[in-house]
Amino acid sequence: MEEGSLVFPGEPIIRIQTTMAEAQLIESLLLNLINFQTLIATKAARIYNASGGGRVLEFGLRRAQGVDGALSASRAAYIGGCAATSNTLSGKRYGIPISGTMAHSWVMAFDSELEAFSAYAEIYPENSVFLIDTYNTLDSGIKNAITVGKELKAKGHNFGVRLDSGDLQYLSIRVREELDQAGLERAFICVSNDLTEEIIWQLRTNRTPIDVWGIGTQLVTGGPDASLTGVYKLSARWAGDSIKPVIKLSNNPEKITNPGIKQVYRFYDANETPLGDLICLHDETLKVGKPIRFNHPMYRPNHFILADYHHFVPLLSKKISDGVLCAAPLTLPEIRDRVIAGISGLDTSHTRLLNPHLYKVSLSNALHKLKFGLIDELTEQ
Amino acid sequence: MEEGSLVFPGEPIIRIQTTMAEAQLIESLLLNLINFQTLIATKAARIYNASGGGRVLEFGLRRAQGVDGALSASRAAYIGGCAATSNTLSGKRYGIPISGTMAHSWVMAFDSELEAFSAYAEIYPENSVFLIDTYNTLDSGIKNAITVGKELKAKGHNFGVRLDSGDLQYLSIRVREELDQAGLERAFICVSNDLTEEIIWQLRTNRTPIDVWGIGTQLVTGGPDASLTGVYKLSARWAGDSIKPVIKLSNNPEKITNPGIKQVYRFYDANETPLGDLICLHDETLKVGKPIRFNHPMYRPNHFILADYHHFVPLLSKKISDGVLCAAPLTLPEIRDRVIAGISGLDTSHTRLLNPHLYKVSLSNALHKLKFGLIDELTEQ
Repeated sequence: MEEGSLVFPGEPIIRIQTTMAEAQLIESLLLNLINFQTLIATKAARIYNASGGGRVLEFGLRRAQGVDGALSASRAAYIGGCAATSNTLSGKRYGIPISGTMAHSWVMAFDSELEAFSAYAEIYPENSVFLIDTYNTLDSGIKNAITVGKELKAKGHNFGVRLDSGDLQYLSIRVREELDQAGLERAFICVSNDLTEEIIWQLRTNRTPIDVWGIGTQLVTGGPDASLTGVYKLSARWAGDSIKPVIKLSNNPEKITNPGIKQVYRFYDANETPLGDLICLHDETLKVGKPIRFNHPMYRPNHFILADYHHFVPLLSKKISDGVLCAAPLTLPEIRDRVIAGISGLDTSHTRLLNPHLYKVSLSNALHKLKFGLIDELTEQ
Repeated sequence: MEEGSLVFPGEPIIRIQTTMAEAQLIESLLLNLINFQTLIATKAARIYNASGGGRVLEFGLRRAQGVDGALSASRAAYIGGCAATSNTLSGKRYGIPISGTMAHSWVMAFDSELEAFSAYAEIYPENSVFLIDTYNTLDSGIKNAITVGKELKAKGHNFGVRLDSGDLQYLSIRVREELDQAGLERAFICVSNDLTEEIIWQLRTNRTPIDVWGIGTQLVTGGPDASLTGVYKLSARWAGDSIKPVIKLSNNPEKITNPGIKQVYRFYDANETPLGDLICLHDETLKVGKPIRFNHPMYRPNHFILADYHHFVPLLSKKISDGVLCAAPLTLPEIRDRVIAGISGLDTSHTRLLNPHLYKVSLSNALHKLKFGLIDELTEQ
């Protein structure tokens, strides 16, 4: 599938057709790359959604899993909806916008907080974000930020403040009041401190006046879900002159593979809202307009009939043939646009933070027949 | 501290003394390396402990966070107690022993499971581990493994079987019975399938006949704890000709830093069992034999007196001076030995899987006085 496509559990997202030796050789690396990037892009998209499409900065380098864990997480986080990264090497390597603020050590390196802010404002007049919680957020931090911020405003520059501890709702409201009273309505509030999608969603639904979200650990490691459990399975092989579909059984229904060479079709209504995906055998022909039976991928009798759809499109297309790219890969912004458009195009029942409605991924009649036929054949042996 | 040392929350594990610019330049990379390697070595040590010092194999490449996430996780997992890795590049790069078994795709690539096992046994007569759950563990897998295993035994080779799904306790017991009845008492049982330290501990305390543990996802990503929250803080700086200790305040007591240049001493009893660690200022002199006050690192009045100790040792030592290594780094097996010896030397109250006893990390009187003095000074401003 094209990078940036929405994918759902149980779908083949890459199809490899080659010799067994070559297929095995690339297995682990491919899984490593696809699983991790998909995990982080998904996490970023969830965070971006929780923020209501707000400005989310990726701040994860120091907590990422290895150097490449940090670099590729920045790439995936940007694809998933982040606006920028604090990882300058990622910025350089992938062309991702860079953003950051000062460290506590910057503030502590000066004799006073005011001096630290002034020095920063001199160096970065157009990008000052003052970290105001090193000593006391409300008693000193915001006051010093306002002093220096007014000087910046007088020179025509805007600025921001960052909160990195304490109760972010209480502090943001108080800090917003102070800024507004000082005539600094345009100054923005950035928050950080082990933020999760749930915390962001909670703060946003409480209308807390936060403009920018800096997310590190929970974004670049996937938070409590530190892995995406994609697998790479043999689904067909040559047996003499013909292709023979194969299947792996398991006591866990979700670990039983779907046999054969497959294609995935996404069905839409007239408003381009996705209705469900159908995994088919690659050589099946679907007729537009005809009601189609969507069979449950694991439980044999369960199904529904989809009659009221407008059109469908195939999701898998050839990307590499004989080692040569068939088309130029998408650029990072193009991939990112696909993700954001894809998610905003979903029915909101699927994007609820809690208890979302399941997006249906079903099997075509032909694939269903093949799968359960093979299961019968092997279990009756 | 020497790599492989046991470290506890709140301790300085690396001390950097340099210019601000240089200190900032290395901050993020150093945190990235130390946090992740420490996380995974810790996770591996916990898993190794849960297995009772058993044979644990690292199988994490396909689920690791990036390519380097996989490579450096293999290194750290080995340090923490793993016996081998399935990541051949890690093996090559770090000299870690390599171990692995067949994939489901190997079994599916043949016309029958028996053929697949026979072909594997021909190629790897001395390292055969048959994956027996592709079709049906008890009805076909173990039976085919026994058939081929008997041939291997006749040629003087041992072998193993791997279970990758289903109830591992039930299946292991049944498989052990089958192997023993076939006269294959030496054949070993390897299990995998999203194992966690808790599952391993549960299976082992139930005396399930498992010989080898293959752990992937939960080991190389740190499981539900995907990050170690080590930080890099400014604790002192030059002010004219003198060194001035600095502190960062916070509403969260654990985020208040310990000021000044520090050393950590570990106290032992006569059996070399660690009793607790004391964070001191680097130029303090402790007197052996004298009772020492251990002050709580965050709550001012809390303390205890340690009188009954045998000796103590400093943990921080100079490793790099003016960019040159002061001594050759330890080899990987040396680091691994330090970890295993260190953990087995702890009182078991500290290594309980659930609800372990807290290992005390306290502040010396001098550091305590400096810290709370600075807090008073800054909060009274």
